[in-house]
Amino acid sequence: MIPVILSGGSGSRLWPLSRGQKPKQFLRLVSDKTMVQETLLRLSGLAGLKAPIAVCNESHRFLMAEQLLAIAIKPAAIILEPTGKNTAPAVAMAALSAASGDDILLILPADHVITEHDVFHKAVVEASVLAEMGFLVTFGIVPSEPDTGYGYIRRDNTKQGIAFNVAAFVEKPDLDTAKQYLQSGEYFWNSGMFVFKVSSFLQELEKFNPEILAVCRRALQAAKVDADFVRIDKDIFSTCPADSIDYVIMEKTDKAVVIALDAGWSDVGSWSALWNIADKDAFGNAISGDVLTVDTRNSLIYAESKLVATIGVSGLVVVETKDAVMICSKDRLQDIKEIVAQLKVLKRSEALLI
Amino acid sequence: MIPVILSGGSGSRLWPLSRGQKPKQFLRLVSDKTMVQETLLRLSGLAGLKAPIAVCNESHRFLMAEQLLAIAIKPAAIILEPTGKNTAPAVAMAALSAASGDDILLILPADHVITEHDVFHKAVVEASVLAEMGFLVTFGIVPSEPDTGYGYIRRDNTKQGIAFNVAAFVEKPDLDTAKQYLQSGEYFWNSGMFVFKVSSFLQELEKFNPEILAVCRRALQAAKVDADFVRIDKDIFSTCPADSIDYVIMEKTDKAVVIALDAGWSDVGSWSALWNIADKDAFGNAISGDVLTVDTRNSLIYAESKLVATIGVSGLVVVETKDAVMICSKDRLQDIKEIVAQLKVLKRSEALLI
Repeated sequence: MIPVILSGGSGSRLWPLSRGQKPKQFLRLVSDKTMVQETLLRLSGLAGLKAPIAVCNESHRFLMAEQLLAIAIKPAAIILEPTGKNTAPAVAMAALSAASGDDILLILPADHVITEHDVFHKAVVEASVLAEMGFLVTFGIVPSEPDTGYGYIRRDNTKQGIAFNVAAFVEKPDLDTAKQYLQSGEYFWNSGMFVFKVSSFLQELEKFNPEILAVCRRALQAAKVDADFVRIDKDIFSTCPADSIDYVIMEKTDKAVVIALDAGWSDVGSWSALWNIADKDAFGNAISGDVLTVDTRNSLIYAESKLVATIGVSGLVVVETKDAVMICSKDRLQDIKEIVAQLKVLKRSEALLI
Repeated sequence: MIPVILSGGSGSRLWPLSRGQKPKQFLRLVSDKTMVQETLLRLSGLAGLKAPIAVCNESHRFLMAEQLLAIAIKPAAIILEPTGKNTAPAVAMAALSAASGDDILLILPADHVITEHDVFHKAVVEASVLAEMGFLVTFGIVPSEPDTGYGYIRRDNTKQGIAFNVAAFVEKPDLDTAKQYLQSGEYFWNSGMFVFKVSSFLQELEKFNPEILAVCRRALQAAKVDADFVRIDKDIFSTCPADSIDYVIMEKTDKAVVIALDAGWSDVGSWSALWNIADKDAFGNAISGDVLTVDTRNSLIYAESKLVATIGVSGLVVVETKDAVMICSKDRLQDIKEIVAQLKVLKRSEALLI
């Protein structure tokens, strides 16, 4: 089994900590390891793993290479995308880079948290058995609340071993719909993690979107390969359709199955999600860095470069970095993107670099 | 008439902007001039003014001297206190430094705002007439709300020209009492500004607290005087009782009169007071520096060294300086002193220096 690390996110919802040039997956958000490192380190103990393949934007190549080196993991390849084209082309290039059609790929977004490694390992092993049989396996996160920020997977009632056949992938619901999903017990959060055989994937891609497969094949053949990186050809790759693996394959194939996963998963998609999984003090505050508080509650306070003092506030996210301070109400975190958009219009460095 | 600038405040309520080594009076809080500078510049146009006397802590001597120099005001003296002893000794030393017992002193705290200069000038002229007659004049601020943060002056019903005889100085009231004060029309806020003849003041000080007068006389005689400063003798001055001019003289003398002043006065004693007098945007925000806001209301946001972004918050004071960020609910500003106290216990520089 080959772990494939997808590092495509921009993470602007975690501004001002995450930036265009240092998105979420390269930050130490939940431990002294970065999210990319955590993603690989949590596989430790799984049998039969081969060297991982990483796919990232070429502007992040040194971050990715250094973060793998720092945990002594030697990748089979670091595939550099000149531009992001969503997950289907990224996975296609990883699949085409595998040595054998019989290799099994474990597709992992680089910016998720999973706290219960044993539960996750068990699910991966079960998935690999189904993948050997030709199924395309995804992991459906058992929902803990009617979250409107995730896409959902509806399961069929028919099973393949412990997995369910997939009935449908559905878009982010409104709150009422999400509550119905939660109540029905038939819906999972779409995790974006997959397990399948290289040959199964390529066969389905050929069937449902031969253009993506053809372009990726040509872009990879034209790639410049050196000791560290596989540099995908820019001109060819720029012609590739941009689409998700969900849309291109998983929604269409009859080989899709979903394994329920309840292993402390979070996509850390917002400061609120980070607050949820963080260690908190007696007043519900998740605090990091040089922080003094007086009567402060249910807040996330992150101080990177200087003292942050809070007095008589609650439900705030306060993030101080070297070049910016953000103060946001915890129920308005979706509007951080407005600030990032303003900064981009103003061509200001605070949108880009730490 | 000699303006006497009293620069004794520590201004810890305006932390993190004001510090032990750079208190409120030396900051540019309401214009491009510091509070000390504003205090002197607003006298411009008053007839018969002599060179001012400044009294400040010796550790602030260069700040004081430079800020006077920068507005081309040459003081008659900058008197340096080795330690703060409240206002009675400070005024005593200024009085003893005056050339003549017939000089009239205009005692001004260095950290107040007065927006209506004409009204203020008129009151000062009226006060000087009464001072010539031997009265000790104070200015009572016509209260605009039942503020519990000020001491109050109760007026008598007898008048001296436009001034009222003082019935009593009273401590900071609770809210109910403050409301009664406001309703009665007989109470003013205690401004800490005074006008009196040198001889009148010294005579009353001799009568009510001869020790302060004697110690100040000796400390001044033993002072080291150079081209820039009058350096009060530390050992002698350390034996001086510390008391306010209100307590030592104004509450006891039968020569105290109060002139009602309604001239846009504020002691800028808190971030809330500064917010009150600041120019505000359409959403009630007083903003200074590099600030971006999304749906932010009734807040004071001060950015000194980097971008501050606020989203979906209201009623906050956010102050970012080179070494600290404070986020405080506007109704909890009195607790800033807890942070400053913690920093002092920790012997941290953020309590002291910018």
